[in-house]
Amino acid sequence: MQTSDDYRVPGFLANGIHTGIKTEGGPDLALIYTVRPATVAGVFTTNSFKAAPVLIDQERIRSGIAHAVIANSGIANAATGPEGIADALVVSKAASAALGIPDQTVLVASTGVIGPRLPLQKISAGMKKLVAGLHSGGIPDAEAGIMTTDRFPKIACRKGIIGRKEITLCGIAKGAGMIQPNMATMLAFIMTDAAIARDALDLIFKRSIACSFNAVTVDGCMSTNDTALILANGLADNPEVKRGSRDLGRFGELLSDLLSELARALVRDGEGATKMIEITVTEAKTRRDAQRIAYAVANSNLVKTAFFGEDPNWGRIISAAGSLDIDLPVDRVRLFMEDIPLFAEGKGTNAPKDGLAEIMKRPEIRVRLGLGLGRQSWTVYASDLSFDYVKINARYHT
Amino acid sequence: MQTSDDYRVPGFLANGIHTGIKTEGGPDLALIYTVRPATVAGVFTTNSFKAAPVLIDQERIRSGIAHAVIANSGIANAATGPEGIADALVVSKAASAALGIPDQTVLVASTGVIGPRLPLQKISAGMKKLVAGLHSGGIPDAEAGIMTTDRFPKIACRKGIIGRKEITLCGIAKGAGMIQPNMATMLAFIMTDAAIARDALDLIFKRSIACSFNAVTVDGCMSTNDTALILANGLADNPEVKRGSRDLGRFGELLSDLLSELARALVRDGEGATKMIEITVTEAKTRRDAQRIAYAVANSNLVKTAFFGEDPNWGRIISAAGSLDIDLPVDRVRLFMEDIPLFAEGKGTNAPKDGLAEIMKRPEIRVRLGLGLGRQSWTVYASDLSFDYVKINARYHT
Repeated sequence: MQTSDDYRVPGFLANGIHTGIKTEGGPDLALIYTVRPATVAGVFTTNSFKAAPVLIDQERIRSGIAHAVIANSGIANAATGPEGIADALVVSKAASAALGIPDQTVLVASTGVIGPRLPLQKISAGMKKLVAGLHSGGIPDAEAGIMTTDRFPKIACRKGIIGRKEITLCGIAKGAGMIQPNMATMLAFIMTDAAIARDALDLIFKRSIACSFNAVTVDGCMSTNDTALILANGLADNPEVKRGSRDLGRFGELLSDLLSELARALVRDGEGATKMIEITVTEAKTRRDAQRIAYAVANSNLVKTAFFGEDPNWGRIISAAGSLDIDLPVDRVRLFMEDIPLFAEGKGTNAPKDGLAEIMKRPEIRVRLGLGLGRQSWTVYASDLSFDYVKINARYHT
Repeated sequence: MQTSDDYRVPGFLANGIHTGIKTEGGPDLALIYTVRPATVAGVFTTNSFKAAPVLIDQERIRSGIAHAVIANSGIANAATGPEGIADALVVSKAASAALGIPDQTVLVASTGVIGPRLPLQKISAGMKKLVAGLHSGGIPDAEAGIMTTDRFPKIACRKGIIGRKEITLCGIAKGAGMIQPNMATMLAFIMTDAAIARDALDLIFKRSIACSFNAVTVDGCMSTNDTALILANGLADNPEVKRGSRDLGRFGELLSDLLSELARALVRDGEGATKMIEITVTEAKTRRDAQRIAYAVANSNLVKTAFFGEDPNWGRIISAAGSLDIDLPVDRVRLFMEDIPLFAEGKGTNAPKDGLAEIMKRPEIRVRLGLGLGRQSWTVYASDLSFDYVKINARYHT
């Protein structure tokens, strides 16, 4: 496994431009195109109020084939009714016409403010330029086109060998607010030149997302637009990766690793985040219990503000952990900050304050909570809660 | 029913003094005493990590009789193990000895930082002064003694007639952070001179709390110390209120009204709160669904920051409502801010911006979400999320 800063995947072209959807400037329309139709899998928000592009993609993805992804930032095209669906179809049509591909093979995505309609004229007017500018080094441009309040781009690549052929995976993501399962990110698009069967791709994508995007949280909010897509165009010419094969395991490792990098980048760039907290709950009776407790800690505003204030306030952590309907054996629970025990045998351990103060200053901090109940565990990556989170979200006006 | 600013209940004496538990000064020890032993009922946190005083009260309250409540602020005596239990018993003993009453009839409560042990010497040293200063006008002093980050005291009184006798209820509460069911407040003590049977008191107290303290939220956190107690000393000489009687209904009205006033005061004084948002979910299939959705909206940091920023961001409200595993009929859901419809038929209504801007400036704002699914409803009172919430909770150091 190799990481790579050369953000290229054979057969994939991409671009991102400014069309005016974002009135303040900056790229706001992104296109990903594969020269050969790709096998596709997707995971979408489970929110009742799914945005128009999500509804369209859920339908189109059934064919298992995609040729392009057109995505905009600035406006979410969510809560826009039948008109929003029609608008998304117009955008798709503009892209498929400019590319000369079947409209059904175009997937659409949007992120931004909920409510307003898309400015179709601006988007259509920019489409020719967007398509004309497609290039094999365009993945960072596409990333720029989907960013909203993100402070830095999230791009990751992996290379590996499958069936003696080198395969490449590259992914882009945007997030910042509303980072929570089930779907960690607003938008994530993964491109690979691996040849892989559709059912295998579907399985491994969902599985990899469960332990990456679905294990991060910024503010516990789930958006109307969350969309993760993976396109595999097969240009690596490897023997097709099939379900149950060893190759699928290897592909899954590369993919999980890539998605985890993107997911952690989403937390690090959580709105106003100053720290990333890795919360591991061990010795739970069920994995579901471990998840619920990890998220209860991760989403506690009192815990988040304590980390922002660099205070090792373990009381808030155990209080959050104990607040669910899961009965915890107080005497057996143990809490560690990095490797320093903070709570055991029903009380605080009087851990050395100096060591803790040093740990709390770090940008990444590990918390481990042993429940003493069973063998299941779960890890969640969370951001802290800062003045800037409030500033960004109070100032972001509709 | 009358409200009253004369915070006295026949037969109840109270006091609050500074003993040094709070190093920064201010009252930190409170005592409530009834000249005649009272019938008592209590509701406690369901957190797994219950503080020592909670464990003691849960045991003692089984007798149905209480004579005094001794409570401190500054240190929660939570996560203190067997030593914490012993400490709370020392405090109780000091109070019962000074008052000359059976130790088992003293209830204890603490609020403050989780972890540290109580400074027993300071508390014992102050006990004589605390008892000597007991007076019938001392309820506000007791309130002062239990406040932590509260910006203003929460005291409410009601008078009513039961069996031709005037009865009085007075309650004090402290809250600020960690306001969420099941228990809205850290501490609440209600005093009444009504004569009421123990089972009737227990029933009506739990029922009244369900629609008052358990319908408010500041940050979705539940503490280790939440304790609500009601003491009824019978000095009003009314015919004893019994289960199933009309008088219990009248008593319940007075009590619910009193608790609601205290609960709303807790939200208004939520840490850093600038607004109170009343969120009503109607037309749910079950009351539980209505509750869960109301709390999902009330606890969404994106919704809370939007209110702080005075932005009528209805997209965040419906997104939060739709994020649970409750399938909502997008076309039938309607959202109102006060009486202005914001979302209907699957999309925004283009409500007039001027009217909304005026509403968003108000200190109290009503939001109503009709689901179009059934007949159940629930209302939650929530605070917004401000810079000051972060400041208070990031600066509050252990």
